[in-house]
Amino acid sequence: MCRWLAYTGSPILVHDLLYRPANSLVMQSLHSHLGAEPTNGDGFGLGWYTDQPRPGVFRSTEPAWNDRNLEELTAQIRSGCVLAHVRASTGSPVQQTNCHPFRRGRWLFAHNGLISGFHASKRDLVMAVDPSLFTEIEGTTDTEVLFHLALTFGLEDDPVAAMSRAVGLVEETGRSHGEPYPMQMTVAATDGESLYAFRYSSQGQSRSLFHSADVATMQAQYPDNPLLRELSEDTHLVVSEPLGGLHGAWQEVPESTCVVVRGGRQEQVPFVPSVLASSA
Amino acid sequence: MCRWLAYTGSPILVHDLLYRPANSLVMQSLHSHLGAEPTNGDGFGLGWYTDQPRPGVFRSTEPAWNDRNLEELTAQIRSGCVLAHVRASTGSPVQQTNCHPFRRGRWLFAHNGLISGFHASKRDLVMAVDPSLFTEIEGTTDTEVLFHLALTFGLEDDPVAAMSRAVGLVEETGRSHGEPYPMQMTVAATDGESLYAFRYSSQGQSRSLFHSADVATMQAQYPDNPLLRELSEDTHLVVSEPLGGLHGAWQEVPESTCVVVRGGRQEQVPFVPSVLASSA
Amino acid sequence: MCRWLAYTGSPILVHDLLYRPANSLVMQSLHSHLGAEPTNGDGFGLGWYTDQPRPGVFRSTEPAWNDRNLEELTAQIRSGCVLAHVRASTGSPVQQTNCHPFRRGRWLFAHNGLISGFHASKRDLVMAVDPSLFTEIEGTTDTEVLFHLALTFGLEDDPVAAMSRAVGLVEETGRSHGEPYPMQMTVAATDGESLYAFRYSSQGQSRSLFHSADVATMQAQYPDNPLLRELSEDTHLVVSEPLGGLHGAWQEVPESTCVVVRGGRQEQVPFVPSVLASSA
Amino acid sequence: MCRWLAYTGSPILVHDLLYRPANSLVMQSLHSHLGAEPTNGDGFGLGWYTDQPRPGVFRSTEPAWNDRNLEELTAQIRSGCVLAHVRASTGSPVQQTNCHPFRRGRWLFAHNGLISGFHASKRDLVMAVDPSLFTEIEGTTDTEVLFHLALTFGLEDDPVAAMSRAVGLVEETGRSHGEPYPMQMTVAATDGESLYAFRYSSQGQSRSLFHSADVATMQAQYPDNPLLRELSEDTHLVVSEPLGGLHGAWQEVPESTCVVVRGGRQEQVPFVPSVLASSA
Repeated sequence: MCRWLAYTGSPILVHDLLYRPANSLVMQSLHSHLGAEPTNGDGFGLGWYTDQPRPGVFRSTEPAWNDRNLEELTAQIRSGCVLAHVRASTGSPVQQTNCHPFRRGRWLFAHNGLISGFHASKRDLVMAVDPSLFTEIEGTTDTEVLFHLALTFGLEDDPVAAMSRAVGLVEETGRSHGEPYPMQMTVAATDGESLYAFRYSSQGQSRSLFHSADVATMQAQYPDNPLLRELSEDTHLVVSEPLGGLHGAWQEVPESTCVVVRGGRQEQVPFVPSVLASSA
Repeated sequence: MCRWLAYTGSPILVHDLLYRPANSLVMQSLHSHLGAEPTNGDGFGLGWYTDQPRPGVFRSTEPAWNDRNLEELTAQIRSGCVLAHVRASTGSPVQQTNCHPFRRGRWLFAHNGLISGFHASKRDLVMAVDPSLFTEIEGTTDTEVLFHLALTFGLEDDPVAAMSRAVGLVEETGRSHGEPYPMQMTVAATDGESLYAFRYSSQGQSRSLFHSADVATMQAQYPDNPLLRELSEDTHLVVSEPLGGLHGAWQEVPESTCVVVRGGRQEQVPFVPSVLASSA
Repeated sequence: MCRWLAYTGSPILVHDLLYRPANSLVMQSLHSHLGAEPTNGDGFGLGWYTDQPRPGVFRSTEPAWNDRNLEELTAQIRSGCVLAHVRASTGSPVQQTNCHPFRRGRWLFAHNGLISGFHASKRDLVMAVDPSLFTEIEGTTDTEVLFHLALTFGLEDDPVAAMSRAVGLVEETGRSHGEPYPMQMTVAATDGESLYAFRYSSQGQSRSLFHSADVATMQAQYPDNPLLRELSEDTHLVVSEPLGGLHGAWQEVPESTCVVVRGGRQEQVPFVPSVLASSA
Repeated sequence: MCRWLAYTGSPILVHDLLYRPANSLVMQSLHSHLGAEPTNGDGFGLGWYTDQPRPGVFRSTEPAWNDRNLEELTAQIRSGCVLAHVRASTGSPVQQTNCHPFRRGRWLFAHNGLISGFHASKRDLVMAVDPSLFTEIEGTTDTEVLFHLALTFGLEDDPVAAMSRAVGLVEETGRSHGEPYPMQMTVAATDGESLYAFRYSSQGQSRSLFHSADVATMQAQYPDNPLLRELSEDTHLVVSEPLGGLHGAWQEVPESTCVVVRGGRQEQVPFVPSVLASSA
C-alpha cells in the first residue's frame, strides 16, 4: 500500500535522493521491506519546489523502477523540498490522476494506507467536501478525498487541526456504515516551507514511518561516510521505511503523532482525530 | 469532440468495420470531416458483444490511428454488435477511465458532445445519481455522469424515457447555474440486442449523426460493390459521420430524434427532455 | 527474467487460463516462485490462434497484474492454442516491441532467460540474420534476435534443427567474445498446430520448466476437481512454473530437452546445439 | 513528418518556449501549418542543458498537446539550450526509443524528414555504424541510424563534415538499392554550446526550416512587444516553422545549408554530401 519520502533541507540533486541510497524509494517500488505489499509498481509521483509559484508534479503509471523519464528528470533537478511516492493500489484504477502527491496551490499531499470501507463511505465523504473544491477531485482514490476534506477544514491555515477534523469525519462516517476501524495512514503534507508528517490509524497499528536523526550528530558519529558528508545540517527526511542501514540514522515516528519540520527544526505533536460536524 | 460508430447485424470481423472504409473511424481519429475537432486523438474505446454474459471493453489513451493492439484485436474478433469511439477531450484528463464506451452490466454508452457549464453543475448532477450507483463512477467526464443519471432513471428498462429524464435534469440544472444551453449530444446506448442512438442539443445545433440506408436497397443499387456484398441484410450502422462517399448510403438523423434498431428493424421516435424532479 | 505459459487443446476461455489458477501467470507477474526475479512487471504479451490466417498478438508495457484490457480481452476470447508471457527485463527498454511473444507469419516465440554477453555479441548475431529478415527486427531484446536466427536457419520447416543451429551460433559467438556460458533459455515456439518447448543452458542450470501430466490420468485421480473436469483430454500445458499445487499434475522438463506437442500427443527429444557455420 | 525547435540564448523558462507562442511547438503537435502532416501526435521529446554533465532528455509516446507531465516539467525548468521535437511516424513504432532527440554524451540530435527506401538500405547503413556504437542503437528509426553514422564519422569533432559524410553514404547506399532521392531532412545537432541546423534533401525540396531574426533589431522594430522584450540579445531559434506571425521575425534557411550558432553569433555554411567510402 505505497511508500513515500519527504525531504527538506538545502537544495539536493533529486536523483541522489531517489536512487543512491541502498534502500532507495525506487528500490522500494520493486521490493520494499516494511510495506503492506512488497511491490509498489502501480505508478509513482514526484513533487518538488523551485522558485516557481507552484511546485512541479510529475506522475506516471509506469513502475518507478524502470521509468527512464524519472531518472532523467531527477538527474537535472535540484530542490530543497521534495515529496515522492510509489504506489500499490488498494483497488482504484492505475492512472496518473490516482498517483500521489496531489496538489492544490503550493500544497502537496501523499498517503500510505487506506480508508477501510471507503466504498460505503465515499458518497458521504465526497459530499462533505466544500462545493468550491468538489470539481478539483480528478481521480478515485480515498487519498484524494481525504486531501480535499483536509482542505475543506483549513489545511492551508492549520494543517494539524484540519487533518484532525478530516480524520475525525472519516472515522465517524466509517463507523456509521459499520466499519470499526476506518482510518489507516501515514500522510505527508507540505507547502514547500513546512512539512507535516502524520502517523495514525483507528486500530493503532499504523503503516511504518521514520524520520532522520539529526545530521550534525550523525556526521560526528560517522565522519568518513561520504553520503552524510554531502548533507546539509538542516536536512530532514521523513520516510515510510529507512533508506539505509546506518545504525542510529532513523527513528520511528510514534503512533498518533505529527512530525512538524519548519525552519530547519523538527518537533512532534500528538495527533488526535476530532469529532466535529462536517462543514458540508 | 469525438466520433463514434455503432453496428448491429450479422457477426462481422471488427477490423473490417473499423479500418476498411474510406473514412473509417480510425481515419476519423486522425482527421474527421464533420467533427467539432478534426483530430480525435485523446484515446479510444471499443465495446463488443459475444456469447459472454457481458460485452468486452477495450480502452486506451493511445490515439487510435497508431495503436497496434487495436489492429491486432479487431483482426481476431467477430461480433454482431459493436460500439466504438474515438475521443477529443473537452477538458478532462486523458485516461482509460475517461474513454468511452462506458459499461454497466450488458449496457454500453458512448457520447459525442458535452454538458456546457459542467464545472458548475457537476456536484448537483453527481448527487442526483442513485447512491447505489455512485461508486461506479470511475472518471471525470460529463458523459459518465450522464450515463449514470440515465441508469438512475431506468435506462435498463426504458432507455428513451430514462434519457429524456436525464437530459431534462441536465438542462434544468445547467440553467439554474446560468447556462442557457447545457446539453450537446449524440449518444449511443445498447445492450447488445437493441441500439438506441440519440441526437439532441439544447440549442438545436447538434453534432452530426447519420444512419445507414437499407442494405438490400443499396445492394440492388450497387450490385458490383464488394463491401456492400459482404453485408447482411439486417446490417444497421449509426455513425457520427459517413464512413464513405457512396451516394444514398447514409441518411442524416434529424434533430431531437432517437433511432431505435431492434430485431433487424429500424424506427425513429421523437426525443424530448422531460422536466421531472430528480430521484436523488 | 520472465515467466511464460503455452496451452494447446480444445478451445478454452483465455481468462480461465490466465487468471483462475492459484499460481496463475498473472499472479506470477506480481510474485513468481521459481523465477530468477520474483516480480515480472516489465510488460506482458499474449498470442492466440483463431480461424484467422495469423495469430493475434496483444502486447503492453503495463504490468500484467493491473492491466484491465488484458482481463477484458481474455474474458471474450476462446482459443485452442495460446502463448502468454510476463516480462522481467534484463536491461533492454520496456516497450511493446520488446514484449514477447514475437511473431512471424503463423509462428509465435517466447523466451525466459538471456544471452549472456549479448552486448559484445549483438552485432555479429544480428549480421547473421538473413538480410530478408533483418528489417523485421523491431526491438532490442536478445530474444528477438534469437528468434530471427532460428527463422534464418529454418524454424518454419524444422524447428528443432533450426533452434539447434541458432543456439550453436549464439554459444560459438559468445565464446569468441570471452563469454563462457552464453545461452540461458526456456523457449516456446508454435505455429498453432505444433508446440515446441525447449529447455537448455550452456551451464546446464536452466530456468524452470514444467509440462502438464496427462489429463485423463489426472481426472481419474481427482474426479471431484472442477477445474480438471473442464479440461479436454488433449489438453497440454507447458509452463515456467506450476500453475497450482495439485500433486502429480506437473512434471519437470529435463535439461537439454525439447518437448513437442502435436496432434494431442506429447513427446520429448534431446536438444543439443549444433556447431555450424552461420549462413550470413 | 515531425516538427522541431532549437533554442540557444540566456536561460529561459522552457514552458514559455514550448507553450506561449501563437504557433507553439505544442500547437504544432495538434495542427502544424507547414509540415508534411498536419498532426504530429506520435510522441514527443525534450532535451535541455543545465549544469549537469549530460543534457536531460524527456521522451513520451503521448501526443504533446495533452501531456501534463510536459507542461509541469517545463514550468519548472530554465535552460539556455533546448531541443524539442514532436513526431509524426513514417512507419516505425511509436515508442520512447523512437522519439527524438537522440543523445550521446553531450550531443542531442533531432530530425524532420526520412530516408526514402530505408527498408532496403537499413542493413547496409547499420553495418556502416562503428561497432563500438552499434549497441547504442535502441530503436528502429532512420533518424537514429543517421545519428550514429554521423557519430561514426566524427560528429563530436566536426559536425558539418561528419553529417556530410553520413548523408553522402545514405545517398550512395540508397541509389545502389534503386532509390533515386534517399535523403529528406532538416536536422538539429547540438552539444549545448554550439547548434548546427541542417536543411538538405536529395531532390532539393526539403522540409521547411526557419531561423529567428536578430533580436536586437526586432526589439527596435517592435518596442512594445512583451514577448520580445523578455528575450536576451543572444537569443537564437531555429524552427521547423515560425512560432508566430510577427513580420520579419523569421527567415527561411536556404536549401543545402547548415546554420551554425556559436557564442551568440550565427553563420551559414553550404552543406554538400560528400561521397566517401564508409568506415565500416
